[in-house]
Amino acid sequence: MTLKTISQNKSFGGTQGVYSHESRETGCPMRFGVYLPPAAEKGPVPVLFWLSGLTCTEENFTVKAGAQRVAAELGIALVMPDTSPRGLNYPGDSASYDFGVGAGFYVDATEAPWSGGYRMYSYITKELFALVGNSFALDMQRAGIFGHSMGGHGALTIGVKNPDQFKTISAFSPIVSPTRCPWGEKALTGYLGADRATWADYDATLLIAKRGWKGPALLVDQGTADQFLEGQLKPELLTAACAEAGVALKLRMQPGYDHSYFFISTFVEDHLRHHAAHL
Amino acid sequence: MTLKTISQNKSFGGTQGVYSHESRETGCPMRFGVYLPPAAEKGPVPVLFWLSGLTCTEENFTVKAGAQRVAAELGIALVMPDTSPRGLNYPGDSASYDFGVGAGFYVDATEAPWSGGYRMYSYITKELFALVGNSFALDMQRAGIFGHSMGGHGALTIGVKNPDQFKTISAFSPIVSPTRCPWGEKALTGYLGADRATWADYDATLLIAKRGWKGPALLVDQGTADQFLEGQLKPELLTAACAEAGVALKLRMQPGYDHSYFFISTFVEDHLRHHAAHL
Repeated sequence: MTLKTISQNKSFGGTQGVYSHESRETGCPMRFGVYLPPAAEKGPVPVLFWLSGLTCTEENFTVKAGAQRVAAELGIALVMPDTSPRGLNYPGDSASYDFGVGAGFYVDATEAPWSGGYRMYSYITKELFALVGNSFALDMQRAGIFGHSMGGHGALTIGVKNPDQFKTISAFSPIVSPTRCPWGEKALTGYLGADRATWADYDATLLIAKRGWKGPALLVDQGTADQFLEGQLKPELLTAACAEAGVALKLRMQPGYDHSYFFISTFVEDHLRHHAAHL
Repeated sequence: MTLKTISQNKSFGGTQGVYSHESRETGCPMRFGVYLPPAAEKGPVPVLFWLSGLTCTEENFTVKAGAQRVAAELGIALVMPDTSPRGLNYPGDSASYDFGVGAGFYVDATEAPWSGGYRMYSYITKELFALVGNSFALDMQRAGIFGHSMGGHGALTIGVKNPDQFKTISAFSPIVSPTRCPWGEKALTGYLGADRATWADYDATLLIAKRGWKGPALLVDQGTADQFLEGQLKPELLTAACAEAGVALKLRMQPGYDHSYFFISTFVEDHLRHHAAHL
């Protein structure tokens, strides 16, 4: 696997890079960001994977979240992948903001044509995980995962299914149950087909009921002024699932905050400190 | 003057707003950002004007600099104007990135057609200053100014010319002498005409020689890996002018940093603390 450097910028004493590679899982070039803190010059550092939400690329969190400051202080790396393949040009893949390009939902699609390259679950957990572990000074035994909205769904589902790989999980305004909201129903129908039995493997509430989670408490921040709170996100379903399964959840309802990066940037420091304390 | 609210987002306990108004100086609608810290709920707070660089709008600093965190802590407001009129549609106003739209250079143009609406000097110092003072809980007796690149030039020239209005000045990678670099020579020729005598009023080094500056030290950060360092920015000219005029300058050459917002975000906290300490 060959990495191409798109850009590198010094940031808080470390390096914010953007790279691309030809992906085996998606069948197209994929971009991702990596922030290496100053501590990475001396040896491998723990790493946090950030999964972005609908319409995002690797760039949003990189330029808007202000996470590098805290990552530099804590000596933790950040990996920011894209949210879908780009350039496959499947029919209709750019017709809507919530399906196809920019909306991979972190699943391995089984329906044609999406099954060809919409394999973001395997891309993140296998290909990208191995690639960054082999390419940068990262201690892959000390990895955590977090994300926002669709990416919060990705972080919860990927983390719960791979506790040996990701030791800590947190999320901002996650889609907690895609089997029970319009965004999720549309995406899972498209990528996995109409048989809802196959959807359970990508629903955080169902996965927690089935597998539990023995790691540190799930930290979830949710703004009360989030326009998607009631119709799509439904954090009460996560609360119920965690209570039922005996999983520790720290859900913080943040008064007046919305779904934007202004919300994320306000609380991202708390998330990094939560992960760092347990990695 | 009527303000239209474009957006408001809660950020670090305060409010990041974007507003527009019909500008008397530019003859077109102008947008600007305002960050109000939580302290503004209790009474007027000091205010920092941020002037952006070439190609920027009111958005760049608002979403990329990470300044709201520090502004909230210090109880200081931020005002982020656009960098030029937009929508005047003068012939050629969008032909290049360094002249016309996105490149107002914070001057009052005297050459037609630019003299019609390219009046960013008066827009900032008179119209916008009065507008935000009348519209938000700001203590306009405690105002400072800072900026980046073309906006660093704007901050230095506007600040030095208006010491009663702006008590503190700082800059990131500023154009320190537009009469002696390609960006400046192009802009000043276009906006002010070929007579270089008229340019002196918009050159920080010449203004410092003529007027001095009795306020707190000018804080300037400059990355050593900045691609524009030698050809356009030339901080040594500012050092010489300040030494000659007995003006306190704190120029910090930052090893390995470039011209990007990754550089700005790394050091913006220092700038806010510098201003707050003197306002």
